[in-house]
Amino acid sequence: MNFLEERIIKDGVVKEGNILKVDSFLNHQLDVELFDKMGAEWKERFKDVEINKILTIEASGIGIACVVARHFGVPVVFAKKSQSVNLDGEMYTAEVESFTHKNKNQVIVSKKFLNPDDKILIIDDFLANGCALQGLISIINQAGASVSGIGIAIEKGFQTGGQIIRNMGYRLESLAIVDGMDAATGEITFRK
Amino acid sequence: MNFLEERIIKDGVVKEGNILKVDSFLNHQLDVELFDKMGAEWKERFKDVEINKILTIEASGIGIACVVARHFGVPVVFAKKSQSVNLDGEMYTAEVESFTHKNKNQVIVSKKFLNPDDKILIIDDFLANGCALQGLISIINQAGASVSGIGIAIEKGFQTGGQIIRNMGYRLESLAIVDGMDAATGEITFRK
Repeated sequence: MNFLEERIIKDGVVKEGNILKVDSFLNHQLDVELFDKMGAEWKERFKDVEINKILTIEASGIGIACVVARHFGVPVVFAKKSQSVNLDGEMYTAEVESFTHKNKNQVIVSKKFLNPDDKILIIDDFLANGCALQGLISIINQAGASVSGIGIAIEKGFQTGGQIIRNMGYRLESLAIVDGMDAATGEITFRK
Repeated sequence: MNFLEERIIKDGVVKEGNILKVDSFLNHQLDVELFDKMGAEWKERFKDVEINKILTIEASGIGIACVVARHFGVPVVFAKKSQSVNLDGEMYTAEVESFTHKNKNQVIVSKKFLNPDDKILIIDDFLANGCALQGLISIINQAGASVSGIGIAIEKGFQTGGQIIRNMGYRLESLAIVDGMDAATGEITFRK
């Protein structure tokens, strides 16, 4: 087990409905020292690819992306989930459906922050059915930029998101892939 | 002028309606090296107070808070702006009105992440009329925790938020206080 899998075993809570609660360190209270370790790990895994920008999506992805970006020496752009009066000018948009919230959102990035020569690392906390990730890829494609890689903290390996992304040839590095969870016993099975 | 004021002059854009757009480095594209400098500055300004946790609010505050937290060696908790199906258990809530979005939101923090012995530094990107900040203070008070200080990147000094907070005796350290803006000339006046 790596450091993130160990932390999930220690502090993650399995709930009915295939919900894995990691809000004590990943997406409500944030352990920035853990994020720093994740950054070092992704920097090692993506050392052979060119990356000049990190793209993530609000809200939980932002903290991880910002700490990770310090390892790559690049800026972060975060996609917004709804129209904001402060977002003027031309925008890239994609419609995505949230697994957690069961609703549809517009994912929005201002055109001025994505360029055709950008080599982008996508960072997010969770990958389940992958709709948010598909929206981010759509936006990168609209900009004519390229996806250098995708770093996910926790992938739910029993849902289809990761498989679809790998089938499409993207380089996806999930730090923990959960293949099964049992709400009755609290047991979590990771992919080897 | 300090480093943040210089950056605002260089990359900020003044729009009609007292809007200061800093989305190229502060709240859409994120300059994490700048955030790191801000962290060092707040660490210096708050060196005499005890801080064991940083509290911020989604979404723009999260990235700043996480990079800043590395300087203090403490975790971050971010308040959520709407009810989430993933947020179970007992929560602290406060109702706040957004200056930017002209709507009311429930600000929510899970009770398990705020304790009576917490000494909290609040971090956020903007302070205008201060409603979001008042909501965070309300939640800290509900928890019986204490506010060690408040670090704001950009305070709009011509709105009442900062004055109210200082009148109430909170220690507020805004890195840039904008006393006036002119959309016609693009001129920005900082408080000395």
